[in-house]
Amino acid sequence: MRHAVIMAGGSGTRFWPASRKNRPKQFLSLASDVPLVRQTFERVAPLVGAENTWIVTTKDTAELTRKAVPEMPAGNVLAEPMGRDTAACAGYACEALLNVDPEAVCIVLPADHVIGEEDRFRSSLAAGARHVEASGGLLTFGIRPTRPETGYGYLEIGEESASIGDWQVHHLKRFVEKPDIDTALTYVDRGQHFWNAGIFAWRAQDFLSEVRRQLPLLAHGLAKIGAAFGGSDAERVLDEVYPTLQRISLDFGIMESAETCWTIPVEYPWSDVGSWPALREVLTADENGNVERGRVLSLDSSNNIVVSEGPVISVIGLKDIIVVATPDGVLVADKEQAQRVKDVVNTIKERGWHEVL
Amino acid sequence: MRHAVIMAGGSGTRFWPASRKNRPKQFLSLASDVPLVRQTFERVAPLVGAENTWIVTTKDTAELTRKAVPEMPAGNVLAEPMGRDTAACAGYACEALLNVDPEAVCIVLPADHVIGEEDRFRSSLAAGARHVEASGGLLTFGIRPTRPETGYGYLEIGEESASIGDWQVHHLKRFVEKPDIDTALTYVDRGQHFWNAGIFAWRAQDFLSEVRRQLPLLAHGLAKIGAAFGGSDAERVLDEVYPTLQRISLDFGIMESAETCWTIPVEYPWSDVGSWPALREVLTADENGNVERGRVLSLDSSNNIVVSEGPVISVIGLKDIIVVATPDGVLVADKEQAQRVKDVVNTIKERGWHEVL
Repeated sequence: MRHAVIMAGGSGTRFWPASRKNRPKQFLSLASDVPLVRQTFERVAPLVGAENTWIVTTKDTAELTRKAVPEMPAGNVLAEPMGRDTAACAGYACEALLNVDPEAVCIVLPADHVIGEEDRFRSSLAAGARHVEASGGLLTFGIRPTRPETGYGYLEIGEESASIGDWQVHHLKRFVEKPDIDTALTYVDRGQHFWNAGIFAWRAQDFLSEVRRQLPLLAHGLAKIGAAFGGSDAERVLDEVYPTLQRISLDFGIMESAETCWTIPVEYPWSDVGSWPALREVLTADENGNVERGRVLSLDSSNNIVVSEGPVISVIGLKDIIVVATPDGVLVADKEQAQRVKDVVNTIKERGWHEVL
Repeated sequence: MRHAVIMAGGSGTRFWPASRKNRPKQFLSLASDVPLVRQTFERVAPLVGAENTWIVTTKDTAELTRKAVPEMPAGNVLAEPMGRDTAACAGYACEALLNVDPEAVCIVLPADHVIGEEDRFRSSLAAGARHVEASGGLLTFGIRPTRPETGYGYLEIGEESASIGDWQVHHLKRFVEKPDIDTALTYVDRGQHFWNAGIFAWRAQDFLSEVRRQLPLLAHGLAKIGAAFGGSDAERVLDEVYPTLQRISLDFGIMESAETCWTIPVEYPWSDVGSWPALREVLTADENGNVERGRVLSLDSSNNIVVSEGPVISVIGLKDIIVVATPDGVLVADKEQAQRVKDVVNTIKERGWHEVL
């Protein structure tokens, strides 16, 4: 049976002051009125059903996650005792799926992206699932680049292997690290490189085989957790073993050296909304180039991103800045330096202002 | 007897979002932890006693004023039914003083300035009061300019008339409108022009005589209010007459054409803190030129003014801006355009966001 696994373990320091320790990015709405994790659920559930949709998150946010997606069975929220990066996260989910469905095929995707043209999106996921059901291997989705982005990793595709409906499945030639701008420009032109969207499809068995082959220690830990599922000991084993799991990303740890990898190139609107400036990708700017959310009042200002989660914000005579305000935290940053929000969060920790973390 | 009259009728739209309709500027602390109106009270009360200190404010803020200065008799807060500018305000106070003290000499001063060297300040006030007790006339205090300020009116002094302790009393030659920058530069050099601080001294009788001479209609209205004082009809008469009083400033309406005017030049630190950028005059900047109040965290930023009334504010990579945040309102402005806060308040009115007015 087909399942969807939503990875919702992010900490989201890049979205302070809107995101907090106990309200990471996936609980923000950003571009709509619905939290991202719920948007993601609504995007995939029509394909596999709510009962086959799973969300992996940390214990801290499990309850909030269940509240955001009340129509999903509570047990489908898999709570990691602590974050151990995405390889462990995906492995944990596959063990859980196999426990209920030995033939499980799963689509794995992040909780905190914004994606348009949802019918086409689901159509591509269905094609991916069908391909791995038939052919095995680990399948990735590559977004055709719309700009020479230097902040993403790329997938370089090889020959076409199959055609499923509107979609072509290619061999994946290689993963490419974040390129410099000149290289990124050639990627846009040549059409062989696609953004790695962090969306995957595979048979749970195939994924765990790759884990056993490449990361045997991780596989061993996951197997212990898997063997305890459903027993009275499950939680104790999880709490004991999970913190010892190898901490490595899905891309580095598994995908880059997997035996068989596919890519389906896709073109629907996609953004990982990685930081405040990325809101420009998912919200429409007004005639002055301002992107505004909430009660915002701009005078003689242009090309700003201004987001209110409560307060009335007024901006006068400024351009190319980001303003984000909640009742207890305000960020005002030059757009080019938005990535330093992480430093802000660290400094807030140092200063002991815990209630705004 | 000597009295002090604190004029606290300002509306303070220039300090949004900290100032609001029912919390005008004089209730802000700005440079210390004490509201300006209370700072002003504490500055003058040692000279005349709390029982001879009076505050004129509007009915909307009378209660807040009494709470800010609980040691002053409640009846010393004179509540205008509505603001009618400073000539009416000073006249109302003089009528009230004469009702309890026919020989009243009064020092009149704004509630919302910041003044240093308080002993010297009080010494100058005492000298001014002594001079008008002896010689009559209306006396002004002129601040020696420390910079070529084009935002203030100036007092041009004439010959010295008397010397009282450390202080020289000059004839006031004329009031000078806000100068251009070249003229302001000559004022700093020549030493004959002083900032009009809006601080005055006179015998209440002398002031009301000038009102009768120059603004007979205003005098007539004030006399009606004065005649009703202490009677059962006092409040009704005040409510009926006050809104009809001529609306004109003390400077234009009375001072500029008064028969006898004096000026005592003074040099203590003084600021009318007329807008957010003026905080630089009364707060110390850090080594990056940042003036900060409250929980503020600046990275790679300089020459900003950042004021928090609650939220943690983080500023990244910006200079020459003003940020002010309360839990429900945030201002982010280019320093040169801070005067447009008034437009913001008007726009907020238009949009109907009444709870942040």
